[in-house]
Amino acid sequence: MTASRWQQDNGELQRIFEFVDFVEAFGFVTQVALLAQRQNHHPDISISWNKVTITSTSHDANHTVTGRDHDLADAIDQLL
Amino acid sequence: MTASRWQQDNGELQRIFEFVDFVEAFGFVTQVALLAQRQNHHPDISISWNKVTITSTSHDANHTVTGRDHDLADAIDQLL
Amino acid sequence: MTASRWQQDNGELQRIFEFVDFVEAFGFVTQVALLAQRQNHHPDISISWNKVTITSTSHDANHTVTGRDHDLADAIDQLL
Amino acid sequence: MTASRWQQDNGELQRIFEFVDFVEAFGFVTQVALLAQRQNHHPDISISWNKVTITSTSHDANHTVTGRDHDLADAIDQLL
Repeated sequence: MTASRWQQDNGELQRIFEFVDFVEAFGFVTQVALLAQRQNHHPDISISWNKVTITSTSHDANHTVTGRDHDLADAIDQLL
Repeated sequence: MTASRWQQDNGELQRIFEFVDFVEAFGFVTQVALLAQRQNHHPDISISWNKVTITSTSHDANHTVTGRDHDLADAIDQLL
Repeated sequence: MTASRWQQDNGELQRIFEFVDFVEAFGFVTQVALLAQRQNHHPDISISWNKVTITSTSHDANHTVTGRDHDLADAIDQLL
Repeated sequence: MTASRWQQDNGELQRIFEFVDFVEAFGFVTQVALLAQRQNHHPDISISWNKVTITSTSHDANHTVTGRDHDLADAIDQLL
């Protein structure tokens, strides 16, 4: 797996991950979904075969990046 | 989908679900996993192609059925 | 669940689905992933809480819509 | 992750995996489900929080272990 760093821009925190194949990518996406459920904070997720883009923002804070987005990003980082 | 009723026995709450095929069964299992994450209470899950068995107990209450098991069962029932 | 019709544009077949919540949306996405594995043809998938966008194209046919995209769309329609 | 070796007994191939937590375990289970779809050969899967048991047999060969079970086991091993 290779990944960009988290980028903060336009009130969003975004990171792009590239896996070996779709199976590995979708296993990761499922883990992110489970973390999001626990934190009750759900990022946007895009999957393009082996490439996954995670984008997190706090809609209830006027589409800005808050501690809830950083907490989710930290939990995602611990998966890797 | 057809399903048994929830059965309480030996300190466990159990229900068996039968779906059309593996795809439908595994979609359901994923939803149960997401609910369990939200409630922080994880049932045992067995999958045999189109058949899913959910078994819930409260380990921290000496393997008895508590309100947490009933809450999970209720959330699962609302999926159907 | 509500959904648009499949739209064909720019060599892609796209449909947008809106579910009750994230749990229902992600259960559907997992089913789509399983269908894609069986057909060995993987669409782009975007998830934004309860909204799922599926976009399918045939990269090996110069980014056009082929029978493989229609077969995947048909299998997805049968989930609903 | 720790795991037993594959055990062959009573016409079944079985391996038990233990992960850090439920999130890691369920991510693995989802990958196994995707592999099974590709091979059109679905093992029984049991999940108990961080513990996953995979049991594979060929029902159409009188519940014996065949090349299809070994192929699935090999694909699962490559996930690790």
